[in-house]
Amino acid sequence: MTIHDLDTPALVVDLDVMERNLSRMADYARAHGLRLRPHTKTHKIPALGARQLALGAVGLTVAKVSEAEVMLAAGEGDLLIAYPIFGTEKMRRLVEVARRSRVTVSVDSVEAARPIAEAARSAGVSIGVLAEVDAGLHRVGVRPEVFVDLLRGLAGLDGIALRGMAFYPGHIKNQDLAAVGVLSDLISGLVREAAAAGFELPVVSGGSTPTEWNSHLVKGMNEIRPGTYIFNDRNTIISGACQAEDCAATIIATVVSTAVPGQFVIDGGSKTFSSDKAAAEGFGVFLDAPDALFEKMNEEHGYVKHAGHQRKVGERVRILPNHICVAVNLHERIYGVRGEEVVETWTVDGRGKLQ
Amino acid sequence: MTIHDLDTPALVVDLDVMERNLSRMADYARAHGLRLRPHTKTHKIPALGARQLALGAVGLTVAKVSEAEVMLAAGEGDLLIAYPIFGTEKMRRLVEVARRSRVTVSVDSVEAARPIAEAARSAGVSIGVLAEVDAGLHRVGVRPEVFVDLLRGLAGLDGIALRGMAFYPGHIKNQDLAAVGVLSDLISGLVREAAAAGFELPVVSGGSTPTEWNSHLVKGMNEIRPGTYIFNDRNTIISGACQAEDCAATIIATVVSTAVPGQFVIDGGSKTFSSDKAAAEGFGVFLDAPDALFEKMNEEHGYVKHAGHQRKVGERVRILPNHICVAVNLHERIYGVRGEEVVETWTVDGRGKLQ
Repeated sequence: MTIHDLDTPALVVDLDVMERNLSRMADYARAHGLRLRPHTKTHKIPALGARQLALGAVGLTVAKVSEAEVMLAAGEGDLLIAYPIFGTEKMRRLVEVARRSRVTVSVDSVEAARPIAEAARSAGVSIGVLAEVDAGLHRVGVRPEVFVDLLRGLAGLDGIALRGMAFYPGHIKNQDLAAVGVLSDLISGLVREAAAAGFELPVVSGGSTPTEWNSHLVKGMNEIRPGTYIFNDRNTIISGACQAEDCAATIIATVVSTAVPGQFVIDGGSKTFSSDKAAAEGFGVFLDAPDALFEKMNEEHGYVKHAGHQRKVGERVRILPNHICVAVNLHERIYGVRGEEVVETWTVDGRGKLQ
Repeated sequence: MTIHDLDTPALVVDLDVMERNLSRMADYARAHGLRLRPHTKTHKIPALGARQLALGAVGLTVAKVSEAEVMLAAGEGDLLIAYPIFGTEKMRRLVEVARRSRVTVSVDSVEAARPIAEAARSAGVSIGVLAEVDAGLHRVGVRPEVFVDLLRGLAGLDGIALRGMAFYPGHIKNQDLAAVGVLSDLISGLVREAAAAGFELPVVSGGSTPTEWNSHLVKGMNEIRPGTYIFNDRNTIISGACQAEDCAATIIATVVSTAVPGQFVIDGGSKTFSSDKAAAEGFGVFLDAPDALFEKMNEEHGYVKHAGHQRKVGERVRILPNHICVAVNLHERIYGVRGEEVVETWTVDGRGKLQ
């Protein structure tokens, strides 16, 4: 089967590019003595998690308990649920995951950690936590000035093991080495403060996609959790963390209407690409048609303005999405290709796992 | 089971409101002699399509061949695929649908219609087409001045039956009766023009959500395809086509972090609500907390600024999404409730059907 046989819209992954991306990050982490724990939210496919583990990742990162369940299939389990979770049903499922895999959860409050501790204790399983600090993004994580208070609160809970700290410096732009320096001072300072208060933090887990190649500059951080690097996307290019030739995943669509002059319509919209914007115009880029602007979309259609070459109904085009993680989440299956040959068909098992 | 037992995020449908919405639209269509062909993209659930048919709908509208396959389960089949489709695999599947149901496809070019005609002819099945005209939105559909040319082109194709015309006046705002008048003149004029050229158009299918209650003012139109009315959403309120009490579908989420002052974080983001914006601030509204602004989201989290009452970790909140159709598409299951009792669990069978 070739890409021309795929029904559109179809999300295809260039395996050569993907493998280069995987190796490059594994090499970088190894060279700098950083533990690599890829975030699987980008691909959501156990077989790809298994490839990351085979290349030396210490474990995998997931966003939800339901994604942890899916990633058990990736192999030798050491899973980090990178966000606070809450709820009776989640605790029941978390405990089941913990019976089959080492598991750690990032938390930023004693209130979120207490039910985890209670569930672990009553089930007789071991669950770890990382204490999340706000490194400046103001999303989750406690303020640095109360970080040691959080450590004390977590240490006071029977049933969980305090395994370290977590943070996400998503506010720092690529190449902003001054901001990376500030982050480094903050994190290494907190590690020292924690040690002074009697808390060892074996894991110091952080990093972001824009700053992924500067992770070694953050003193005290010993684990990184990049996700997007496996495929990359338009936003990664814009952030400066990759080049166009590092983007492995594109969407093939078919032109279905050319009735409105100066425009063609493709058979994919927000249900195919997501409506995520980029820090640039358009919902994605036509890699081989720079005159085309992916200007609007509705659920089923993309509306493309063009200045030059008029496409024909039935012609296929290839688009690099703005944000690959949310695009993958919309596809039941994605395809691995070598050149034009389709050599892998993956079911996106972690797709749509909301809980 | 009550809503308090649901794992979050959970999309719940108030059945009393939904049933009132369904009846109101059925009554309106009946009162005005309009054929009602609900667009099922909003719910994507055959059992709800069946309810619409039971209330007198003449058939159902779908966006894709794969959605048509799903909606075969709704019962007595008369399906309209409301968008042009193209591709070998789609033709194979379309023919299979046509063996089990009456089926019609909207097309705006002979190029898109020809493969349908060829597939129908070689399989010995009957497939209808509606000729799509651009009523001013400039999305799909031919310009009115070449509409009769499209009819001639379609009539020249052996294998398809020309069943009428279609249009979507998505550019007209609610209560803009002047624009509805212009539309009425356009459509009735085209019907006359077609008749003069020898084309009977038994079906004249149009309408939009913002103008849904003014459909009877469009002369010549005899079929409407509303979708959102079953649930309604924030955008429908903003458009003026419904009130807050007509919104049947909301998302229950849990507060998972309050670490950043003046903010709480819920366990649902763009993978739960979609990143669709509204013509107003925020990614949805907290119906029972007007002080809360759903300001930002990432894939897994919503970030809510609030001026007043500080929520606690573990507290549940209820959000009306901006755009319910894309939100439903992100959920594997949704729940029908009476008061706080969960009385239905539906699998969203048409979810993620991209092809």
